[in-house]
This record gives sequence, structure tokens and C-alpha cells, in this order.
Amino acid sequence: MTSFPFLKGHGTENDFVLLPDPDGTVHGELAPGLVARLCDRRAGLGADGVLRVVRASSYDDPAAVAARGRAEWFMDYRNADGSTSEMCGNGIRLFARYLVEHEGVDPSRAVPIGTRAGVLTVTFDEAGAATVDMGRPRVLGETKVSVGPSAWPATHVSMGNPHAVAFVESLDDAGPLLEPPGHDEAVYPHGVNVEFVVRHGPRHVAMRVHERGSGETRSCGTGACAVMVASAIADGVGRNTSYRVDVPGGTLHVTWTDEDHVLLTGPAVLVASGNWLVTDDVPVRT
Amino acid sequence: MTSFPFLKGHGTENDFVLLPDPDGTVHGELAPGLVARLCDRRAGLGADGVLRVVRASSYDDPAAVAARGRAEWFMDYRNADGSTSEMCGNGIRLFARYLVEHEGVDPSRAVPIGTRAGVLTVTFDEAGAATVDMGRPRVLGETKVSVGPSAWPATHVSMGNPHAVAFVESLDDAGPLLEPPGHDEAVYPHGVNVEFVVRHGPRHVAMRVHERGSGETRSCGTGACAVMVASAIADGVGRNTSYRVDVPGGTLHVTWTDEDHVLLTGPAVLVASGNWLVTDDVPVRT
Repeated sequence: MTSFPFLKGHGTENDFVLLPDPDGTVHGELAPGLVARLCDRRAGLGADGVLRVVRASSYDDPAAVAARGRAEWFMDYRNADGSTSEMCGNGIRLFARYLVEHEGVDPSRAVPIGTRAGVLTVTFDEAGAATVDMGRPRVLGETKVSVGPSAWPATHVSMGNPHAVAFVESLDDAGPLLEPPGHDEAVYPHGVNVEFVVRHGPRHVAMRVHERGSGETRSCGTGACAVMVASAIADGVGRNTSYRVDVPGGTLHVTWTDEDHVLLTGPAVLVASGNWLVTDDVPVRT
Repeated sequence: MTSFPFLKGHGTENDFVLLPDPDGTVHGELAPGLVARLCDRRAGLGADGVLRVVRASSYDDPAAVAARGRAEWFMDYRNADGSTSEMCGNGIRLFARYLVEHEGVDPSRAVPIGTRAGVLTVTFDEAGAATVDMGRPRVLGETKVSVGPSAWPATHVSMGNPHAVAFVESLDDAGPLLEPPGHDEAVYPHGVNVEFVVRHGPRHVAMRVHERGSGETRSCGTGACAVMVASAIADGVGRNTSYRVDVPGGTLHVTWTDEDHVLLTGPAVLVASGNWLVTDDVPVRT
């Protein structure tokens, strides 16, 4: 392994290591073991995932090939364990921030980005907040979730991944959330992301989220979108509305458009840039 | 806040951000709020603590003033919450690694380093492992610790900070260690670091540690030293002996010398170097 550049950043404290690799010559096919080491929060840099920045024309992944002609850049997203993943609403906003600050991309125009979920678009407002079009939500009916002896009705919303949105009296009602909340296995055979929501005012809610496979996190982009849609329905508001959604790691704004698209807006911050150092001569673990 | 350089590294996965500031001109009196942000594992770089690298002659802390003439470099150690701390056995080994790799210090000679616990010495062996002289242990008698309904006899050892070392049948016996283990409040009025130990073979033990104020960690330098001393006494071996001590984050070796000093040896690895980026225009939290 040789030295290579990285950046670290986050969107509402959903954090990522970015690996600039425009021509695909630094990492080739990114090694899962390297991703896992970079994401290790003690032995590595620490992150929820890795975003490799590569030109669509320089990467042979079928999704990158499919994006050519519509998007110059491809987001090669990896989970912290090194596996590939399709999309991440906070990650793609940070990815676009990188393109603007380090690759000369014009923030006054919509930025198309290739992903394994297709080509998505990020825009920047004058305050610098990044918005990604997360596509169409699907509202799939009512279900219920539980924590210990407590149970709540919940709305089943798909944002490509499955969510169960439960309104609670207090965010403390869900307890420490050390275990996945109980849910209907018939409705969610592959698990579910569970959001607990309280109302703070008109079109203003706050949430906690338990992500399947990750536990409680400080932010979840698709979760905030699912919460907004469930809230707008519960409030009798429907589309063409914006909500403020407070997550433990900050504040997001979610808009449900007349065209039935969900737009996720929020901060995306690069906090550091540097180089991963050669460690051939000193083992990281002995 | 302006951009400044940093490094990230760890010793048996006890991890630190290093801030090179040889002349004391980068940070002056390091701001606790900046330390806390750097150590934040989502919004910052993430670390157990910060090691500012400053010449003793360039820092007016009384401990740095006292070190002048005996040590060129001073380890300005801060806990993750920004408070100052006296010493850290894994941190000082990483600090010495930095001096060798980036400040031209000769690793073939003992490296004196000023700390708030006095001037300590780090040496390197041919394999690159770093050893710090942790000073004299104090063995203060027998006590006991408990987790839920289980209780064990324990040895009270001070390495400057208080430890209770309990031998267990299996490291699983202590359970998930989400709460501080029960202990004698009269013996430990300010809390205690509790080590659970199993024997793996002659002069080879493995441990888990619950650190007061931090919870279970992947490594604790003073804890490994306390465990070695308690083990050597329990085994009837005494001084002039070395033990291998496995911690969750790797392997340490501890020697108890004829002169009643404890030497802590293990890996110390710098994994990244870079620059903290200016964030004036985009708030990290909104």
C-alpha cells in the first residue's frame, strides 16, 4: 500500500472519507479491506462510509458506464465494511461539495452525479446548502413498531429502502435504542429503518433513527425524507410543502414537490484533507 | 479559525490527533472547544485525545517550564472533552514516534519528553516498538469488584491513577460492560479503572478494561501495567520479569524492572497527516 490523498467531511454528522481518484488510477477496484480500515474509528480515519470520486469515463462499473454522457462524475459509494451500496442522501451532498471546492464544478448550475441508483442531481443555494433530488416516495400503508413493552402505530414509507415512521410523545420514549425495534417481519422481511418523530411546530419535526445494520445514527437522509412524507400526510398537507426535520446531528429541510419528488437539503462540510500514510513497515495490528 | 496541520495515529487502537506546533505559534493556548471538535468522531477527526507537540522552551505551562534543560519537547495532552491531563502511556509512545518521523529525533537514543507528570523517557527497539518508562507501581492491597450479581476479588494497584485488577474465568464473564463495575467507594472515592484478566500461558495474559469516565476502551496503557504487576504478584514471580498483555486493540509487553519501574512496550502508528480546513463560511452544526 502506498500513500494516497483523502478528505474527511460530513452532512449532519453522517460522516465520510472521500478518496479523490479522477482517472481511476489511484485505487483501481477499491479494496474492501482498505475501505474497512479507513472507516475504522480507532485504527483508521473513521467514517460511516467511503466515497471514491472517479470520472464515469474512467470506471468500468456498469452503473458508471450507464452514467456516461449524462454525468461526468461517479460516486463509488462503499459501506464501512467495504461492501458497495447504491446511494446515500447525505453522502452525495458531500460528494457534490467536494466537486465544487476541489474539481472546479460550477455550483450555480445543477450537478449531475452518477450513482448505482442512477444519475442524481445536486443543487446549491446561495447560503451554500446542498439539495439532492431523492426521487419518488412510496407510501405503503400502516404498520407498527415496538421497543420493549411500548408499541406505536407507524407509517410504512419506501425511499428505495424501507422505513417505518412512528409518532411519539417524546424522543426519550424509545429509550437507548441498543436493539433493533420490533417490527412486522412479514412487511419487512429484510429489516427496516425505524424513525421516532415528535412535532416541534408547524412543518417542523424532530426525529431519532435506528438504521438496520448500523444501530442508532446521528442522521439518515432517506429517513428524514420518509419522516417528512409521513408527517405531511398525517398533517393533511400533502405535496408542494417543505418541512424542517431536526436530526441528532443537525438540521435538514425536506421538500415534497408537486411532481412527487422528495428534495433533501442541508449542510455538507469538508473538515480535513490529507494523505493516508504508508504503513508497510509497521503493522496497524500486531 | 484558520487551517492548520494535524496527524492521526494510535497505539493499540488508543487513538490521538497530533497537532505540530513546535514554536507555540499555531495554537497558543489550545482552545478546549477546538480540541472537543477535533475529537468528535462524526463532526471532526475523531480521537481519544489530542497531543499538541510544542518545544518546552516555547510554552509557558509550569510543567513545560520545569522540563526545560532536560527535554526539548513537551507533550501538551488533552482529553477528548478539551480538559488537560497529565500523562497517557499509549499517547506518549505515539508522540515519540512523531518526533522520530517528523522532527528528526534520533530513535537510537532515549527520547526525553516533558509531560504534566514530569519528564518521561521513550526508547525504540530494532523492530520499531516504542517503550515508555511508566515509573513505580504501588500495590495497595486487596479489594473487590462486581458486575450485576457477579463479584470477584481484585488487586488495588496505583500507576498514578487507580486500578482494580480482577482475574476471571473468561473475559465474557464481565458482560457488555455498559456501566461502571461496582467497587468499594471508600477505597476509590474518585472512581476506578477496572481490569478483567485471563491467563493465556506463562507470562501471557489478556484483559478488558473499563476506564472511569470513558467506558470500555480498546486499550489502556496504565491498565496494562497494573495488570502485569498484579499478575506477577499472583504468579509469585515478582520483579525483573516481562509479560505479554493482550488488549482488545492489540498486544502490549510490560516489564517490571529490578529498580521497581514499569516499562510499557508496543506499537505506535501514524496513519494519516493533513490539514484541518477552514470552516468559517459553513457551520459544522446548524
